[in-house]
Amino acid sequence: MLKVGLLGAGRIGQVHAASIRNNPRSTLVAVSDVHEQAAEKLAAESGSQARRTEAVLNDPEIDAVLIATSTDTHSDLIEAASAAGKAVLCEKPVDLSLERAKTCLRNVAATGQPVMIGFNRRFDRNFSALKQASQRGDIGKAELLAITSFDPAPPPVSYIKVSGGLFRDMMIHDFDMANFIMGEQPVQLRAVGSSLVDPEIGEAGDVDTAVVTLTYADGRIAVIKNSRRAVYGYDQRVELLGSKGLLQANNMLEDTVVKSTAAGVSSAKPTYFFLERYMPAYAAEWEAFVSALLDGNDLPVTLDDGVAALAMAEAATESARTGKAVDLAS
Amino acid sequence: MLKVGLLGAGRIGQVHAASIRNNPRSTLVAVSDVHEQAAEKLAAESGSQARRTEAVLNDPEIDAVLIATSTDTHSDLIEAASAAGKAVLCEKPVDLSLERAKTCLRNVAATGQPVMIGFNRRFDRNFSALKQASQRGDIGKAELLAITSFDPAPPPVSYIKVSGGLFRDMMIHDFDMANFIMGEQPVQLRAVGSSLVDPEIGEAGDVDTAVVTLTYADGRIAVIKNSRRAVYGYDQRVELLGSKGLLQANNMLEDTVVKSTAAGVSSAKPTYFFLERYMPAYAAEWEAFVSALLDGNDLPVTLDDGVAALAMAEAATESARTGKAVDLAS
Amino acid sequence: MLKVGLLGAGRIGQVHAASIRNNPRSTLVAVSDVHEQAAEKLAAESGSQARRTEAVLNDPEIDAVLIATSTDTHSDLIEAASAAGKAVLCEKPVDLSLERAKTCLRNVAATGQPVMIGFNRRFDRNFSALKQASQRGDIGKAELLAITSFDPAPPPVSYIKVSGGLFRDMMIHDFDMANFIMGEQPVQLRAVGSSLVDPEIGEAGDVDTAVVTLTYADGRIAVIKNSRRAVYGYDQRVELLGSKGLLQANNMLEDTVVKSTAAGVSSAKPTYFFLERYMPAYAAEWEAFVSALLDGNDLPVTLDDGVAALAMAEAATESARTGKAVDLAS
Amino acid sequence: MLKVGLLGAGRIGQVHAASIRNNPRSTLVAVSDVHEQAAEKLAAESGSQARRTEAVLNDPEIDAVLIATSTDTHSDLIEAASAAGKAVLCEKPVDLSLERAKTCLRNVAATGQPVMIGFNRRFDRNFSALKQASQRGDIGKAELLAITSFDPAPPPVSYIKVSGGLFRDMMIHDFDMANFIMGEQPVQLRAVGSSLVDPEIGEAGDVDTAVVTLTYADGRIAVIKNSRRAVYGYDQRVELLGSKGLLQANNMLEDTVVKSTAAGVSSAKPTYFFLERYMPAYAAEWEAFVSALLDGNDLPVTLDDGVAALAMAEAATESARTGKAVDLAS
Repeated sequence: MLKVGLLGAGRIGQVHAASIRNNPRSTLVAVSDVHEQAAEKLAAESGSQARRTEAVLNDPEIDAVLIATSTDTHSDLIEAASAAGKAVLCEKPVDLSLERAKTCLRNVAATGQPVMIGFNRRFDRNFSALKQASQRGDIGKAELLAITSFDPAPPPVSYIKVSGGLFRDMMIHDFDMANFIMGEQPVQLRAVGSSLVDPEIGEAGDVDTAVVTLTYADGRIAVIKNSRRAVYGYDQRVELLGSKGLLQANNMLEDTVVKSTAAGVSSAKPTYFFLERYMPAYAAEWEAFVSALLDGNDLPVTLDDGVAALAMAEAATESARTGKAVDLAS
Repeated sequence: MLKVGLLGAGRIGQVHAASIRNNPRSTLVAVSDVHEQAAEKLAAESGSQARRTEAVLNDPEIDAVLIATSTDTHSDLIEAASAAGKAVLCEKPVDLSLERAKTCLRNVAATGQPVMIGFNRRFDRNFSALKQASQRGDIGKAELLAITSFDPAPPPVSYIKVSGGLFRDMMIHDFDMANFIMGEQPVQLRAVGSSLVDPEIGEAGDVDTAVVTLTYADGRIAVIKNSRRAVYGYDQRVELLGSKGLLQANNMLEDTVVKSTAAGVSSAKPTYFFLERYMPAYAAEWEAFVSALLDGNDLPVTLDDGVAALAMAEAATESARTGKAVDLAS
Repeated sequence: MLKVGLLGAGRIGQVHAASIRNNPRSTLVAVSDVHEQAAEKLAAESGSQARRTEAVLNDPEIDAVLIATSTDTHSDLIEAASAAGKAVLCEKPVDLSLERAKTCLRNVAATGQPVMIGFNRRFDRNFSALKQASQRGDIGKAELLAITSFDPAPPPVSYIKVSGGLFRDMMIHDFDMANFIMGEQPVQLRAVGSSLVDPEIGEAGDVDTAVVTLTYADGRIAVIKNSRRAVYGYDQRVELLGSKGLLQANNMLEDTVVKSTAAGVSSAKPTYFFLERYMPAYAAEWEAFVSALLDGNDLPVTLDDGVAALAMAEAATESARTGKAVDLAS
Repeated sequence: MLKVGLLGAGRIGQVHAASIRNNPRSTLVAVSDVHEQAAEKLAAESGSQARRTEAVLNDPEIDAVLIATSTDTHSDLIEAASAAGKAVLCEKPVDLSLERAKTCLRNVAATGQPVMIGFNRRFDRNFSALKQASQRGDIGKAELLAITSFDPAPPPVSYIKVSGGLFRDMMIHDFDMANFIMGEQPVQLRAVGSSLVDPEIGEAGDVDTAVVTLTYADGRIAVIKNSRRAVYGYDQRVELLGSKGLLQANNMLEDTVVKSTAAGVSSAKPTYFFLERYMPAYAAEWEAFVSALLDGNDLPVTLDDGVAALAMAEAATESARTGKAVDLAS
């Protein structure tokens, strides 16, 4: 039984609390949050204790820490938890600064503690099935990857301002998905981005619509499309062309009802946002973490993966600004 | 908080135990089973106590009883639990004998206790969405209903022999679905059935493939198709033609991946069987029961509904045998 | 080059005229119609001559006659054309009277001339592909057939009155489809029918909504659903369950565009009616007739097939009236 | 009645000959080809005369010329036909040289003759329906366009060598599609390309897999994916995200049959290549040309459109070579 401390009692912390409790091999011992009331509320609901973060990290009974705090605290908490001998699952991104993330990577390496980054989409059954089909060779050699990833609506501009920008906050998931599907990192990246959805996003120095092209050492190509607004719901699709075929992972729909009338044929929309779409993926992510620790499996997503995706986000931010291709250091 | 006793610790009892525990307004107090070890195992996993059935029914702390025992005990247990002042949710069918079920209905009525029958498919989000669309008038007046309901594989012949036959054991779900969607009971029924899947089923006096036609007082028509074998998975679809359109509730698929190769385009199969398809429906069914008791809502499925479906199953069994249409008493 | 006379210059005659002209191995020589102007107009458009029917039948240059006149003339014209030594393709149904059709069958047999009945749906590429897949054994042994066949809107009541009724006029196509797919004729038939779409249809003694169940000698089952009104378009689907799987032939859509908005996801309707859906099938039907005559292939649909479907229509008319199952003579 | 001369009797010339003959307002008078036998064969089949090109152009009876010859002759023949007072429909591309095409544009302008370029995909009913939906405002303001365009298999390397390269030969269709859908030309273009399908294509100096990103003056973005090999068939899809929704034009399939077995669910492949997919589009293209000439409608695709797409192809070729973004002159 894995004894777990949860840092962060916000929306995503609550999602993780449920995964921890529902997994038969993990138990939630303690919750901390800078808002003590939030920690107390979640602790009460989940049958655990509200504590200060230090108290969580210093509790020798606790085996693992799940970090679901604000991004600016991730690196510090990863380091502190690792130094305290805890296994760590940390939400993405590792940091907004690639340099800081790399330092974190070095410091963690010195502790030898396992650190997994929460790229939850790898655990979505659809993307996971696509990856497996590709690995099985169902479509021969993978040559051209296309990722469509649209949010239903932009977050508040106040959030945008501290988010690190679309590439670090939103497309970082898609960079990791590209790394996951293609099984290697690209060597060059080209980004274009615009503020089309909300002029305030542009005024805040960010883009809300972007396309990034990735090229690989052997000539393979990937393209990622992002928009902060798809009014019909969370649009999350992956498409992979190979020498022997095409794989597509399509959206999940709210229900399977189809209505045909004189006005046309209509069906349900995609599940609305990440909670609706990815709740089972969060549970599977947690199970993978638990299994890595208890069964001795490899971590399916590492801190290196988190740093790699962040490096791509930083390169994309630069490319969108300068208009030039950016080489990705090997 | 609803305190619940669970009678029956088999496969479906375990499904209900999870629903009871996961619902924030119900708690599982005790479990009984004729196999004491099964009760003890489930009690241990669910943090409840293993008890004799009498002890469950006589515990004044227990508010409600969920009956998930073998069919031949349903009527007796419904009556006993009602007489003991418990609210009841009982798995379908009420009984294999329509007469016994009618007696049960009268006896329960005398106690005034609420009894709900577990027609879980009413709580499937797809069928539920279809029903709501029909009630909203999206397709005008409903005129022609078609239900397709195929199991992936037949049960053991030993089970078939005690099941009451396809119409009472399997199609009873579809009779209730017809009643649910059409909002009334038919006046006449015609059934044809054959043993095509497994000759042993025919030798046991049952059919494994059947089509039933229902006609309503105002001329509306419904047709139900059943097969004990659909090797591609659990095929559960409903289609309703109305004066202003068509509604279809299609299968849920294992994932959304589509593969296109020189050999063709392939996609995932339907979810395999009722546990895969209807797990969320069981949770929604339980929530509806809890809500009826705690919030004073109407029971969404009553013992009358259970008796009505059983009457249709009995009529279908007769029609398939005689080759004649059977009038359903009003 | 097959020299062809066309009897009937109405809507369906015009469809056939195009097939005759577009086929590189047939040429349209003459057109007749009781409305001489209609014949003259079509003759002018198609580069052929308008003639009296007798003149067409007596022209030794003409090899084949296509009969697209009103149903009450079919038997007489089939007999006359056969007696005149012509090969015949006649629109369905052979006749409204089964007795008359049987007499026609005997009279034609005496001439030895080939007569094909225009069950165009056999030549639809979707139904044809389903049949081929079944014959290849893709789904093992076919066990349960379901045919959905809805017209977009009912014809005028004046037409209904002379049509022979829904079973002879509309469902006869589906009876032939069942014979085509199952490869044999059923032994028993049950029909229910109602007038739900238009009370005038009921007052005219006909039904507009019907379900027919067919049973086969070895216990296999087929079910046919008909409605005169599907406001979303021509709904023509076939579904066949076998021991190793399911085959479905779905509708063809007007286009492949899908629109996703906040209101939902919408797509194109089925092609509107038989001209939109089956135009390629009419051309394929004609090619099959030409090929049978010029290449010595078997006729893919015979006069016997036409009589068999008519016998089923007559039985269904009786069953819907009496409420009883009707045995089909072998 | 439009009297037409056809230059070029190859595969695409034969397609056009059928469109000309089947259109009730045009008639094919003469065919020319550098291979006289090809011209004679097609003339015989189509009831027209085989002539020298000069004889076609000098025939005062001929109203319009359809140019379906090899690309290197297009500019010369457009100029000659226009100078001879003929209306022209010419296959894409206008030329392999942008400079030559611009000269052609000027020379044609001096004659005042109408010249249409054969971008047949604009007349595909699916892309056309998508464009109309966008113009109606169904998805608000169009913001992000994605075009997927894969051929089933690469052409012979001998063809590749004279084709002008993937961008001029294949993606030029997609450049025009982008111009058609977005209603304006982009201001900047980025291309990446690789030879992944066949090393001989790379050795010939061309790419077989490419992604091009287009950016528009107001920040809108389009992305085009091309591959010379999609073993499952001709993959031709367009997807347009707007402020109020998404439009997708999907592939057309060979048939609508779906097969479900223990191995999975399979359906038909996309129509195999451009003849299967776009035959109706060629007929609609010709009708649009006829209608422009006879009814006084605007030409739906002009020589300017052909030059614009060629300019994009030239820019893409450069961008793929240099790795830099290319500005498109206004």
